[in-house]
Parts: sequence; C-alpha cells; structure tokens
Amino acid sequence: MKIGLIGLGKMGYNLSLNLLDNKHEVVAFDVNAEAVQNISKEGAEGAGSIAELVEKLPSPKAVWIMVPAGQITEQVITELKGLLHAGDIIIDGGNSNYKESIRRAKDVKENGIHFLDTGTSGGMSGARNGACTMVGGNKEAFETVEPIFKDICVENGYLYAGESGSGHFLKMVHNGVEYGMMQSIAEGFDVLEKSQFDFDYEQVAKVWNNGSVIRSWLMELTENAFSKDARLEGLKGVMHSSGEGKWTLEEALDLQVATPVIALSLMMRYRSLEEDTFSGKVVAALRNEFGGHDVVK
Amino acid sequence: MKIGLIGLGKMGYNLSLNLLDNKHEVVAFDVNAEAVQNISKEGAEGAGSIAELVEKLPSPKAVWIMVPAGQITEQVITELKGLLHAGDIIIDGGNSNYKESIRRAKDVKENGIHFLDTGTSGGMSGARNGACTMVGGNKEAFETVEPIFKDICVENGYLYAGESGSGHFLKMVHNGVEYGMMQSIAEGFDVLEKSQFDFDYEQVAKVWNNGSVIRSWLMELTENAFSKDARLEGLKGVMHSSGEGKWTLEEALDLQVATPVIALSLMMRYRSLEEDTFSGKVVAALRNEFGGHDVVK
Repeated sequence: MKIGLIGLGKMGYNLSLNLLDNKHEVVAFDVNAEAVQNISKEGAEGAGSIAELVEKLPSPKAVWIMVPAGQITEQVITELKGLLHAGDIIIDGGNSNYKESIRRAKDVKENGIHFLDTGTSGGMSGARNGACTMVGGNKEAFETVEPIFKDICVENGYLYAGESGSGHFLKMVHNGVEYGMMQSIAEGFDVLEKSQFDFDYEQVAKVWNNGSVIRSWLMELTENAFSKDARLEGLKGVMHSSGEGKWTLEEALDLQVATPVIALSLMMRYRSLEEDTFSGKVVAALRNEFGGHDVVK
Repeated sequence: MKIGLIGLGKMGYNLSLNLLDNKHEVVAFDVNAEAVQNISKEGAEGAGSIAELVEKLPSPKAVWIMVPAGQITEQVITELKGLLHAGDIIIDGGNSNYKESIRRAKDVKENGIHFLDTGTSGGMSGARNGACTMVGGNKEAFETVEPIFKDICVENGYLYAGESGSGHFLKMVHNGVEYGMMQSIAEGFDVLEKSQFDFDYEQVAKVWNNGSVIRSWLMELTENAFSKDARLEGLKGVMHSSGEGKWTLEEALDLQVATPVIALSLMMRYRSLEEDTFSGKVVAALRNEFGGHDVVK
C-alpha cells in the first residue's frame, strides 16, 4: 500500500523503515526537514507539508500519525480533516487518551473520514522490527489498511479491538500493567541490593529469564541494563512518566476498580521526582511535636 | 549421575521424569507407596524408606529433597544427617525459608555433609521439561552435582548464586516479584472488565504476548486461562499464597526497603480470603457515627 506518515520521531522513523522493508510506499512529513531528508534517502517520498503529503496519496488515502499526544495530535487531525475526503482513513498510532480519540473519530466522521485509534507497543525496536498494535474504530476501514498492520507487526501482534476508543483504551491499560510489572521487578532487585548477599544482577536477571515464572521481555531488558552497568551507578532513580499510567489510575477511580499496585507504581514515580518531600517534613514535625523525636534539619 | 529423590508430589514426580529423560539414575522415596510404584514403572529405582534410599546410592551420595517446606523438610534433613557421611550432598529443592537453610547447612556441616539450598521455578511444566534453579552453598559441592542442574534446567536456567541461603533467598524474592507482576496483570484486566468496552480477554492477552512491552510467561498463562474460560466464571477470586510473598515482605521490612507493590499484592491476597471484612465494618460504623451515612446490615 501507499501510506502517509506524519511524525518522524523515534517511533515514526523506525515505523517508516519497517514499512519500507515490507515494500510499502511511504510519503513522509515531519516539521523537522532533516528527518524528512533522512527517510527519503531510505526510500520514502518526502513531503514539505501535510497538504503535500495528502496530495501525493491515492484515494482512499490512509495517513498514519505518529506525533506527541495532546495538542500536536489535535492540530494535525484538524488540518487533516480539512484535507481528506469521505472514505479516507486517519490512523493515530500515538499514545492519545481514548476519550480524545472517541471525540476525534466523531469529529472527522462529519466529513466521512474514518479514524482508527491505534495503540502501539514494543518500543523503538518493535516499531523497527515488529510492533504490537491494538486498533479501535470502523471495522471496514480497519480491513482496508489491515495489510499494513499485518506487515509491521510481529505474528499475531495486532488486534482489531472494537469500537472507537478501544484501541487506545487497551494501550492505556497495557501501560498501567507495565508500570506495576516494572515496579515489582524493581522492588525485588532493591531487596537483593540491600540484602546480606552479593548477587550479580545480570546473572540473576538472566537465570530468571530462562525457565522461571517471571521470565518476560521486561526482565530481558533488566538483564540488558545490568549487563551495561552492573549496579546502575551511572544513573539516578528518577522515574518519569508520560501519562498513560495516570490515565489508567484515573479510569480505575472513575470505574471504582481497586488497583493498588498500579496506583502505588505511579505514586512511587512521583516520589522519585522529589529529593525531599513536604509529606516527610509534616510527619517529622508531628513526631517531634508529640514525642520530641529528633528532626533532620 | 545416580541421585536420590525424596518427595514425589507434583514437583518431585515431574522432576524424577525429567532426570530419567536425561539418563540419570533415580532412587526415589515418598511416604506415598503408590507414587513410588508409579515412578518405578517409569524407570526409577524405588526405596521403601529414606535409609534404603541412602543405602542404594554410591558415594559421594547426592539426595534431592522435594517435600513441603517447614516441618517435613526439617524431619527429612534430620534423618538424612544421621544417615549420610562427610562429602555427601543434600539438595533442598523446595521453597524453604533461606534463614532455615543457612541454619540447616551449618547443622549438617557438623557431619561434613554439604547442603545446597536450591530455589526451583517454572512450575510443574518446568520441573518436567526444563526448570529454572538458583543454588546456594559450597561451590565444590555444587560443581559435583552441576551435571544434574545442567540437564534438568533449560539452557542458562541455573545459577550458582553464592553462599548458603542465597539460592532460597533468590527464589523468595523471585516469588515476591511474581506476586506484584500477577497483581498488576490482574488489575489491568479488572479495569477492562468494568470498562465500557466489550473485550475478548483471550485475544487481548494474545496480542499483548506478541510484540508488546508486557509480553511474559505470566501473560501466556493468562491467555491460556481465558482460552478455557472466557470470563473466568468457573472460579472465585480467592487468592491463596504459600508464604514466599510474605517472607519477601518481612525481609523488606527488616532491611527497610520500600516495596509497596509487593506489600499490596500480598494484602490483596489476604483481602480476597474474606467475604466481608472487619475493617469494612469499622469504616462503615465511623461514617455512620460522624455523618449519619447509611450502613449495610
């Protein structure tokens, strides 16, 4: 197929290479002209604007968006709404909030445009060599572009999840689960680190990856990280987050689902962003007030 | 090698078959004579008592114990201490507490007997077809029986972890991590279940197993469980535990390691054992006291 691709960041660039490997024609645009030049050298057709990208596609036109969630995604979709026509398909492969995706699907439907909310997992290596995608939206539109999903994903690595929003919803919950799994692995290694034993963490992660109950891709990444830095001395335990864990927790609160592990995983990320905490000051002050316990100044 | 195996439960029986597959000679004993008869038909040499089992082994004698942790393990080791001699090797493949293993290693060392505390992971299928083991204790003793570990484990699936206790310590923490990973996966599916969407959980687990960040053996087991019972209607959400998660948390408390995810995973298991809770009654009563809020009688 011939497909438009907007956004040549870490994910979009690798996805373009993946598409080209699989003999698809890619018309690519990014605000960064250098990225467009680079991908052109790899065999893609560059475009200087979104309008030019749309012009270069045959009908029905299919455009994959791989830009940061939020305002940039919104701008790109608004522009596409004015350029595409009935029967054309927008695929949002980014980490958009599923509620926004439901709204956008309704919005572009006014012009007969289909919107496929597509959760993409597997990181950069997945985008490059075989991703995992979860797709929500009109089923016929999905079937039109299914060859794309079949080729860029690993075997059995894509799912038509159902109505609008279901793809991004699945990806959101996937990330929530990821938070909990990562935090659990991390806590285990923290217990090892503070124990009386002197473990080789790369070796531990390696044996846990071979035949154990907790073998997993995340444990493979753990093994890989320890192989490069045996005690992770080169980095600080600051854990950023990009929003999907928070959304999962907000969703759990709205639905009244008890998700303590996902909640605490998120809270531990927030805690890690602070050198000192105000809550710690409050507890220390109270211990001092009622018991005269020492405080650290 | 010729090895003694005490305990023909789910794990021990499968382990015996695994040893026999790999051309090792197995002398087997269990308090259940039928299990001994059954394994004899598979090619093992049956023994009617621990003393007979020990007698049938060449020196240095190696005995693998696969019996429930705690009192039964203690009894078997006490009996073996009186029967084995200097240079013989006891392998405790069960889920013993690492502190007990350190004590037992010291105890049997009085008679010159080596003790290898061996954490075994991978469940029944692992015991049968390729396990994952973590071994603590005397390194030379380990090397004497290393061919056994090499054969019964998957490739790269065994680790000499270090001094006495380190094998069971690693297995304990492995199980703590397992609790957190399982609870995280479970919470994710709970959010899906209560959402506005109608997901096919087997399909969701399947796509998450192919190319996603959270692909893992536990997710494969999740896929398998949903393939047999699409909404798990055939079982209740009662989560038993066998002690290793609790030990991990106790260890974290002793070492003052913040492990909220492992802690909450354990607490959610305890919560699942009660139809109603006393803490719930207390909170409901307090809401009624201060705000006149309704209580459920």
